[in-house]
Amino acid sequence: MTERGLFITFEGVDGSGKSSQMRRLAAALRAAGHDVVETVEPGGTAVGARIRDILLDPANANLGSRAELLLYFAARAQNVDEILEPAIARGAIVLSDRWTDSTFAYQGHGRQLGEQVVLDLDQIACRGRRPDLTLWIDIDLDTALARAGARNQAEANSATRMDSQQRDFYVRVAEGYRALAAREPERFRRIDGHGAEDEVFARVWAMFQTFRSAHV
Amino acid sequence: MTERGLFITFEGVDGSGKSSQMRRLAAALRAAGHDVVETVEPGGTAVGARIRDILLDPANANLGSRAELLLYFAARAQNVDEILEPAIARGAIVLSDRWTDSTFAYQGHGRQLGEQVVLDLDQIACRGRRPDLTLWIDIDLDTALARAGARNQAEANSATRMDSQQRDFYVRVAEGYRALAAREPERFRRIDGHGAEDEVFARVWAMFQTFRSAHV
Repeated sequence: MTERGLFITFEGVDGSGKSSQMRRLAAALRAAGHDVVETVEPGGTAVGARIRDILLDPANANLGSRAELLLYFAARAQNVDEILEPAIARGAIVLSDRWTDSTFAYQGHGRQLGEQVVLDLDQIACRGRRPDLTLWIDIDLDTALARAGARNQAEANSATRMDSQQRDFYVRVAEGYRALAAREPERFRRIDGHGAEDEVFARVWAMFQTFRSAHV
Repeated sequence: MTERGLFITFEGVDGSGKSSQMRRLAAALRAAGHDVVETVEPGGTAVGARIRDILLDPANANLGSRAELLLYFAARAQNVDEILEPAIARGAIVLSDRWTDSTFAYQGHGRQLGEQVVLDLDQIACRGRRPDLTLWIDIDLDTALARAGARNQAEANSATRMDSQQRDFYVRVAEGYRALAAREPERFRRIDGHGAEDEVFARVWAMFQTFRSAHV
Protein backbone atom coordinates (compact mmCIF):
# COMPACT_ATOMS: atom_id res chain seq x y z
CA MET A 1 0.00 0.00 0.00
CA THR A 2 1.41 3.38 -0.99
CA GLU A 3 0.00 6.28 0.96
CA ARG A 4 0.60 9.96 0.47
CA GLY A 5 2.95 11.18 3.21
CA LEU A 6 1.70 13.71 5.71
CA PHE A 7 3.52 16.46 7.60
CA ILE A 8 1.91 17.56 10.86
CA THR A 9 3.46 20.06 13.26
CA PHE A 10 2.74 20.96 16.88
CA GLU A 11 3.07 24.53 18.07
CA GLY A 12 2.62 26.46 21.28
CA VAL A 13 4.54 28.30 23.95
CA ASP A 14 6.79 26.43 26.36
CA GLY A 15 4.58 24.71 28.92
CA SER A 16 1.59 24.40 26.56
CA GLY A 17 1.75 20.60 26.60
CA LYS A 18 2.39 20.27 22.84
CA SER A 19 5.23 17.74 23.23
CA SER A 20 3.10 15.38 25.34
CA GLN A 21 0.22 15.71 22.89
CA MET A 22 2.50 14.94 19.97
CA ARG A 23 3.76 11.77 21.66
CA ARG A 24 0.17 10.65 22.21
CA LEU A 25 -0.80 11.30 18.60
CA ALA A 26 2.27 9.35 17.45
CA ALA A 27 1.32 6.40 19.66
CA ALA A 28 -2.30 6.46 18.46
CA LEU A 29 -1.26 6.59 14.79
CA ARG A 30 1.23 3.75 15.25
CA ALA A 31 -1.46 1.70 16.99
CA ALA A 32 -3.60 2.29 13.88
CA GLY A 33 -0.80 0.84 11.73
CA HIS A 34 0.77 4.01 10.32
CA ASP A 35 4.46 4.57 9.63
CA VAL A 36 5.15 7.51 11.97
CA VAL A 37 8.33 9.59 12.22
CA GLU A 38 8.78 12.03 15.11
CA THR A 39 11.20 14.94 15.01
CA VAL A 40 11.87 18.12 16.93
CA GLU A 41 13.11 21.60 16.03
CA PRO A 42 15.86 22.46 16.55
CA GLY A 43 17.78 19.30 17.30
CA GLY A 44 16.05 16.53 15.35
CA THR A 45 19.30 15.58 13.55
CA ALA A 46 22.88 15.21 14.77
CA VAL A 47 23.78 18.53 13.11
CA GLY A 48 20.63 20.08 14.55
CA ALA A 49 21.52 18.89 18.06
CA ARG A 50 24.85 20.70 17.81
CA ILE A 51 23.10 23.83 16.58
CA ARG A 52 20.64 23.53 19.46
CA ASP A 53 23.58 23.41 21.90
CA ILE A 54 24.81 26.75 20.55
CA LEU A 55 21.32 28.28 20.75
CA LEU A 56 20.68 27.23 24.34
CA ASP A 57 24.16 27.68 25.85
CA PRO A 58 24.00 30.48 28.45
CA ALA A 59 27.64 31.27 27.53
CA ASN A 60 26.28 32.65 24.23
CA ALA A 61 24.28 35.42 25.89
CA ASN A 62 25.59 37.79 23.20
CA LEU A 63 24.15 35.69 20.35
CA GLY A 64 22.63 38.22 17.93
CA SER A 65 19.01 37.91 16.89
CA ARG A 66 19.85 37.42 13.20
CA ALA A 67 22.52 34.81 13.93
CA GLU A 68 19.94 33.03 16.09
CA LEU A 69 17.36 33.21 13.30
CA LEU A 70 19.80 31.76 10.75
CA LEU A 71 20.84 28.96 13.14
CA TYR A 72 17.20 27.88 13.56
CA PHE A 73 16.80 27.70 9.80
CA ALA A 74 20.11 25.85 9.34
CA ALA A 75 18.85 23.14 11.71
CA ARG A 76 15.55 23.05 9.82
CA ALA A 77 17.21 22.76 6.39
CA GLN A 78 19.12 19.74 7.65
CA ASN A 79 15.93 18.23 9.05
CA VAL A 80 14.19 18.69 5.66
CA ASP A 81 17.00 16.93 3.76
CA GLU A 82 17.82 14.21 6.27
CA ILE A 83 14.47 13.29 7.86
CA LEU A 84 11.41 15.03 6.48
CA GLU A 85 11.66 14.56 2.69
CA PRO A 86 12.80 10.90 2.78
CA ALA A 87 9.98 10.05 5.20
CA ILE A 88 7.32 11.90 3.20
CA ALA A 89 8.59 10.23 0.03
CA ARG A 90 7.97 6.77 1.46
CA GLY A 91 4.48 7.77 2.61
CA ALA A 92 5.13 8.20 6.34
CA ILE A 93 3.33 10.59 8.69
CA VAL A 94 5.93 13.00 10.04
CA LEU A 95 5.19 14.79 13.32
CA SER A 96 7.40 17.70 14.33
CA ASP A 97 7.55 19.37 17.73
CA ARG A 98 7.87 22.98 16.45
CA TRP A 99 8.62 24.17 12.92
CA THR A 100 8.76 27.51 11.07
CA ASP A 101 5.66 28.79 12.88
CA SER A 102 7.75 28.79 16.07
CA THR A 103 10.34 30.98 14.35
CA PHE A 104 7.52 33.20 13.06
CA ALA A 105 6.17 33.60 16.61
CA TYR A 106 9.43 33.69 18.63
CA GLN A 107 11.86 35.46 16.30
CA GLY A 108 9.48 37.27 13.91
CA HIS A 109 7.13 38.56 16.65
CA GLY A 110 8.92 37.87 19.95
CA ARG A 111 12.26 39.34 18.88
CA GLN A 112 10.51 41.71 16.47
CA LEU A 113 12.52 40.71 13.40
CA GLY A 114 9.32 40.86 11.34
CA GLU A 115 7.26 38.26 9.52
CA GLN A 116 8.71 38.59 6.01
CA VAL A 117 12.31 37.63 6.83
CA VAL A 118 11.00 34.42 8.46
CA LEU A 119 8.87 33.57 5.41
CA ASP A 120 11.81 34.32 3.06
CA LEU A 121 14.15 32.06 5.04
CA ASP A 122 11.52 29.33 5.13
CA GLN A 123 11.50 29.30 1.32
CA ILE A 124 15.30 28.95 1.25
CA ALA A 125 15.62 26.35 4.01
CA CYS A 126 12.52 24.21 3.33
CA ARG A 127 12.35 24.49 -0.47
CA GLY A 128 8.57 24.95 -0.44
CA ARG A 129 7.80 22.08 1.94
CA ARG A 130 5.18 23.27 4.43
CA PRO A 131 3.11 21.45 7.06
CA ASP A 132 -0.16 19.93 5.86
CA LEU A 133 -1.69 20.52 9.29
CA THR A 134 -0.51 22.42 12.35
CA LEU A 135 -1.99 21.91 15.80
CA TRP A 136 -1.51 24.97 17.98
CA ILE A 137 -1.93 23.97 21.64
CA ASP A 138 -3.13 27.24 23.07
CA ILE A 139 -3.18 27.98 26.79
CA ASP A 140 -3.21 31.24 28.66
CA LEU A 141 0.17 32.77 29.36
CA ASP A 142 0.08 32.50 33.16
CA THR A 143 -0.61 28.77 33.03
CA ALA A 144 2.14 28.24 30.45
CA LEU A 145 4.76 30.19 32.39
CA ALA A 146 3.81 28.44 35.65
CA ARG A 147 4.10 24.99 34.02
CA ALA A 148 7.38 25.81 32.25
CA GLY A 149 8.76 27.32 35.46
CA ALA A 150 7.87 24.22 37.50
CA ARG A 151 9.48 21.96 34.91
CA ASN A 152 12.67 24.00 34.84
CA GLN A 153 12.95 23.98 38.63
CA ALA A 154 12.66 20.20 38.53
CA GLU A 155 15.55 19.86 36.06
CA ALA A 156 18.98 20.63 37.46
CA ASN A 157 21.12 23.04 35.45
CA SER A 158 18.29 23.85 33.14
CA ALA A 159 18.81 27.59 33.01
CA THR A 160 18.80 28.46 29.32
CA ARG A 161 18.80 31.67 27.34
CA MET A 162 15.05 31.38 26.74
CA ASP A 163 14.32 31.22 30.47
CA SER A 164 15.82 34.66 30.95
CA GLN A 165 13.41 36.26 28.50
CA GLN A 166 10.83 38.60 29.88
CA ARG A 167 7.08 38.26 30.07
CA ASP A 168 6.44 40.82 27.32
CA PHE A 169 8.46 38.64 24.96
CA TYR A 170 5.98 35.81 25.55
CA VAL A 171 3.07 38.17 25.07
CA ARG A 172 4.43 38.97 21.60
CA VAL A 173 4.99 35.26 20.89
CA ALA A 174 1.34 34.56 21.67
CA GLU A 175 0.38 37.40 19.33
CA GLY A 176 2.48 35.75 16.62
CA TYR A 177 0.57 32.49 16.99
CA ARG A 178 -2.76 34.35 16.85
CA ALA A 179 -1.58 36.10 13.69
CA LEU A 180 -0.89 32.70 12.10
CA ALA A 181 -4.35 31.42 13.03
CA ALA A 182 -5.87 34.45 11.31
CA ARG A 183 -3.56 34.18 8.30
CA GLU A 184 -3.89 30.46 7.56
CA PRO A 185 -7.09 29.21 9.23
CA GLU A 186 -7.22 26.00 7.18
CA ARG A 187 -3.75 24.78 8.11
CA PHE A 188 -3.08 26.38 11.47
CA ARG A 189 -5.69 25.00 13.90
CA ARG A 190 -6.16 26.13 17.47
CA ILE A 191 -6.64 23.45 20.12
CA ASP A 192 -7.74 24.54 23.59
CA GLY A 193 -4.84 23.36 25.77
CA HIS A 194 -6.57 23.76 29.13
CA GLY A 195 -7.75 20.76 31.12
CA ALA A 196 -6.41 17.27 31.72
CA GLU A 197 -4.04 15.72 29.18
CA ASP A 198 -6.74 13.18 28.20
CA GLU A 199 -9.26 15.91 27.52
CA VAL A 200 -6.81 17.86 25.38
CA PHE A 201 -5.88 14.73 23.45
CA ALA A 202 -9.53 14.04 22.68
CA ARG A 203 -9.56 17.47 20.97
CA VAL A 204 -6.30 16.72 19.11
CA TRP A 205 -7.64 13.40 17.88
CA ALA A 206 -10.96 14.90 16.78
CA MET A 207 -9.12 17.62 14.86
CA PHE A 208 -6.90 15.06 13.18
CA GLN A 209 -9.93 12.98 12.13
CA THR A 210 -11.65 16.06 10.72
CA PHE A 211 -8.51 16.84 8.73
CA ARG A 212 -8.22 13.24 7.45
CA SER A 213 -11.82 13.02 6.35
CA ALA A 214 -11.44 16.28 4.41
CA HIS A 215 -8.23 15.08 2.69
CA VAL A 216 -8.87 11.46 1.63
CA MET B 1 41.13 62.13 15.25
CA THR B 2 37.94 60.53 13.99
CA GLU B 3 38.36 58.56 10.80
CA ARG B 4 35.75 56.84 8.72
CA GLY B 5 36.00 53.09 9.33
CA LEU B 6 36.99 50.82 6.46
CA PHE B 7 36.03 47.23 5.72
CA ILE B 8 38.47 45.28 3.55
CA THR B 9 38.13 41.59 2.74
CA PHE B 10 40.54 39.01 1.33
CA GLU B 11 39.32 36.32 -1.03
CA GLY B 12 40.77 33.42 -2.95
CA VAL B 13 40.80 29.64 -3.04
CA ASP B 14 42.51 27.62 -0.31
CA GLY B 15 46.26 27.84 -0.89
CA SER B 16 46.09 31.23 -2.62
CA GLY B 17 48.09 32.92 0.12
CA LYS B 18 45.31 35.34 1.09
CA SER B 19 45.67 34.75 4.85
CA SER B 20 49.41 35.54 4.81
CA GLN B 21 48.79 38.63 2.71
CA MET B 22 46.10 39.82 5.10
CA ARG B 23 48.44 39.47 8.09
CA ARG B 24 51.06 41.53 6.24
CA LEU B 25 48.58 44.26 5.38
CA ALA B 26 47.42 44.34 9.01
CA ALA B 27 51.02 44.71 10.22
CA ALA B 28 51.76 47.46 7.69
CA LEU B 29 48.63 49.41 8.63
CA ARG B 30 49.35 49.09 12.33
CA ALA B 31 52.90 50.29 11.72
CA ALA B 32 51.35 53.33 10.01
CA GLY B 33 49.34 54.03 13.17
CA HIS B 34 45.93 52.68 12.20
CA ASP B 35 43.47 50.92 14.49
CA VAL B 36 43.23 47.52 12.77
CA VAL B 37 40.85 44.67 13.58
CA GLU B 38 41.39 41.26 11.99
CA THR B 39 38.67 38.66 11.70
CA VAL B 40 38.02 35.44 9.82
CA GLU B 41 34.94 33.76 8.37
CA PRO B 42 33.62 31.51 9.67
CA GLY B 43 34.97 31.47 13.21
CA GLY B 44 35.86 35.08 14.04
CA THR B 45 33.63 35.03 17.14
CA ALA B 46 33.08 32.43 19.89
CA VAL B 47 29.72 31.53 18.34
CA GLY B 48 31.33 31.48 14.89
CA ALA B 49 34.07 29.12 16.09
CA ARG B 50 31.41 26.65 17.25
CA ILE B 51 29.64 26.95 13.90
CA ARG B 52 32.96 26.40 12.13
CA ASP B 53 33.45 23.18 14.13
CA ILE B 54 30.14 21.89 12.79
CA LEU B 55 31.03 22.88 9.21
CA LEU B 56 34.45 21.21 9.22
CA ASP B 57 33.70 18.09 11.28
CA PRO B 58 34.12 15.03 9.01
CA ALA B 59 31.40 13.36 11.14
CA ASN B 60 28.94 15.73 9.45
CA ALA B 61 29.52 14.36 5.96
CA ASN B 62 25.75 14.38 5.45
CA LEU B 63 25.48 18.13 6.08
CA GLY B 64 23.08 19.44 3.44
CA SER B 65 24.14 22.28 1.14
CA ARG B 66 21.39 24.63 2.37
CA ALA B 67 22.12 23.91 6.04
CA GLU B 68 25.77 24.65 5.27
CA LEU B 69 24.84 27.89 3.51
CA LEU B 70 22.72 29.04 6.46
CA LEU B 71 25.45 28.15 8.96
CA TYR B 72 27.97 30.31 7.08
CA PHE B 73 25.56 33.24 7.22
CA ALA B 74 24.74 32.66 10.89
CA ALA B 75 28.46 32.96 11.70
CA ARG B 76 28.63 36.11 9.55
CA ALA B 77 25.61 37.74 11.19
CA GLN B 78 27.27 37.27 14.57
CA ASN B 79 30.53 38.73 13.23
CA VAL B 80 28.64 41.80 11.94
CA ASP B 81 26.97 42.45 15.31
CA GLU B 82 29.86 41.56 17.59
CA ILE B 83 33.00 42.68 15.72
CA LEU B 84 32.45 44.47 12.42
CA GLU B 85 29.90 47.18 13.22
CA PRO B 86 31.41 48.24 16.58
CA ALA B 87 34.89 48.49 14.96
CA ILE B 88 33.65 50.42 11.93
CA ALA B 89 31.72 52.75 14.24
CA ARG B 90 34.89 53.72 16.10
CA GLY B 91 36.76 54.32 12.82
CA ALA B 92 38.87 51.16 12.69
CA ILE B 93 40.07 49.34 9.58
CA VAL B 94 38.55 45.86 9.66
CA LEU B 95 40.25 43.13 7.63
CA SER B 96 38.40 39.86 7.11
CA ASP B 97 39.83 36.60 5.80
CA ARG B 98 36.84 35.62 3.62
CA TRP B 99 33.35 37.11 3.59
CA THR B 100 30.18 36.76 1.52
CA ASP B 101 32.17 36.55 -1.74
CA SER B 102 33.49 33.19 -0.49
CA THR B 103 29.93 31.97 -0.03
CA PHE B 104 29.08 33.33 -3.50
CA ALA B 105 32.00 31.39 -5.01
CA TYR B 106 31.92 28.19 -2.89
CA GLN B 107 28.22 27.67 -2.22
CA GLY B 108 26.62 29.75 -4.99
CA HIS B 109 28.91 28.49 -7.77
CA GLY B 110 30.83 25.54 -6.28
CA ARG B 111 27.77 23.81 -4.80
CA GLN B 112 25.58 25.33 -7.53
CA LEU B 113 23.02 26.85 -5.17
CA GLY B 114 22.90 29.93 -7.39
CA GLU B 115 23.94 33.55 -6.93
CA GLN B 116 20.62 35.05 -5.86
CA VAL B 117 20.12 33.02 -2.68
CA VAL B 118 23.58 34.11 -1.50
CA LEU B 119 22.82 37.78 -2.20
CA ASP B 120 19.44 37.48 -0.44
CA LEU B 121 21.01 35.92 2.65
CA ASP B 122 23.73 38.56 2.67
CA GLN B 123 21.03 41.24 2.96
CA ILE B 124 19.46 39.41 5.92
CA ALA B 125 22.70 38.57 7.76
CA CYS B 126 24.76 41.72 7.09
CA ARG B 127 21.98 44.33 7.06
CA GLY B 128 23.46 46.11 4.05
CA ARG B 129 27.05 46.22 5.30
CA ARG B 130 29.34 45.33 2.39
CA PRO B 131 33.14 45.45 1.98
CA ASP B 132 34.58 48.77 0.79
CA LEU B 133 37.37 46.90 -0.97
CA THR B 134 38.00 43.23 -1.67
CA LEU B 135 41.39 41.86 -2.64
CA TRP B 136 41.09 38.64 -4.58
CA ILE B 137 44.41 36.77 -4.48
CA ASP B 138 44.20 34.85 -7.72
CA ILE B 139 46.46 31.92 -8.55
CA ASP B 140 46.03 29.08 -10.99
CA LEU B 141 44.18 26.06 -9.69
CA ASP B 142 47.07 23.58 -9.87
CA THR B 143 49.32 25.79 -7.75
CA ALA B 144 46.53 26.36 -5.21
CA LEU B 145 45.68 22.70 -4.87
CA ALA B 146 49.36 21.74 -4.58
CA ARG B 147 49.94 24.35 -1.83
CA ALA B 148 46.77 23.43 0.07
CA GLY B 149 47.60 19.73 -0.26
CA ALA B 150 51.13 20.23 1.09
CA ARG B 151 49.77 22.21 4.04
CA ASN B 152 47.20 19.56 4.88
CA GLN B 153 49.76 16.77 4.76
CA ALA B 154 51.87 18.75 7.19
CA GLU B 155 49.02 19.03 9.70
CA ALA B 156 48.08 15.80 11.41
CA ASN B 157 44.38 14.91 11.43
CA SER B 158 43.59 17.73 9.07
CA ALA B 159 41.19 15.81 6.85
CA THR B 160 38.15 18.06 6.63
CA ARG B 161 34.99 18.01 4.60
CA MET B 162 36.42 20.54 2.14
CA ASP B 163 39.44 18.37 1.43
CA SER B 164 37.22 15.66 0.06
CA GLN B 165 35.76 17.94 -2.58
CA GLN B 166 36.62 17.26 -6.15
CA ARG B 167 38.62 19.27 -8.62
CA ASP B 168 35.57 20.32 -10.65
CA PHE B 169 34.18 21.92 -7.50
CA TYR B 170 37.25 24.19 -7.37
CA VAL B 171 36.92 24.96 -11.06
CA ARG B 172 33.41 26.26 -10.37
CA VAL B 173 34.67 28.23 -7.33
CA ALA B 174 37.25 29.98 -9.53
CA GLU B 175 34.46 30.79 -12.01
CA GLY B 176 32.50 32.33 -9.14
CA TYR B 177 35.39 34.64 -8.29
CA ARG B 178 35.77 35.65 -11.94
CA ALA B 179 32.04 36.40 -12.06
CA LEU B 180 32.45 38.76 -9.08
CA ALA B 181 35.36 40.57 -10.73
CA ALA B 182 33.17 41.15 -13.79
CA ARG B 183 30.14 42.12 -11.72
CA GLU B 184 31.78 44.59 -9.32
CA PRO B 185 35.08 45.72 -10.86
CA GLU B 186 35.41 48.77 -8.55
CA ARG B 187 35.16 46.83 -5.30
CA PHE B 188 36.39 43.35 -6.20
CA ARG B 189 40.03 43.70 -7.28
CA ARG B 190 42.15 40.92 -8.67
CA ILE B 191 45.72 40.58 -7.35
CA ASP B 192 48.10 38.23 -9.18
CA GLY B 193 48.96 35.71 -6.44
CA HIS B 194 51.90 34.09 -8.22
CA GLY B 195 55.48 34.74 -7.13
CA ALA B 196 57.18 35.25 -3.77
CA GLU B 197 55.16 36.50 -0.81
CA ASP B 198 57.06 39.83 -0.92
CA GLU B 199 56.22 40.38 -4.56
CA VAL B 200 52.56 39.63 -4.00
CA PHE B 201 52.47 41.96 -1.01
CA ALA B 202 53.92 44.79 -3.09
CA ARG B 203 50.86 44.38 -5.36
CA VAL B 204 48.50 44.29 -2.37
CA TRP B 205 50.03 47.45 -0.92
CA ALA B 206 49.93 49.28 -4.25
CA MET B 207 46.26 48.35 -4.69
CA PHE B 208 45.45 49.55 -1.18
CA GLN B 209 47.18 52.89 -1.82
CA THR B 210 45.30 53.33 -5.09
CA PHE B 211 42.05 52.68 -3.23
CA ARG B 212 42.93 55.12 -0.42
CA SER B 213 43.91 57.93 -2.76
CA ALA B 214 40.61 57.52 -4.62
CA HIS B 215 38.57 57.58 -1.37
CA VAL B 216 39.99 60.35 0.82
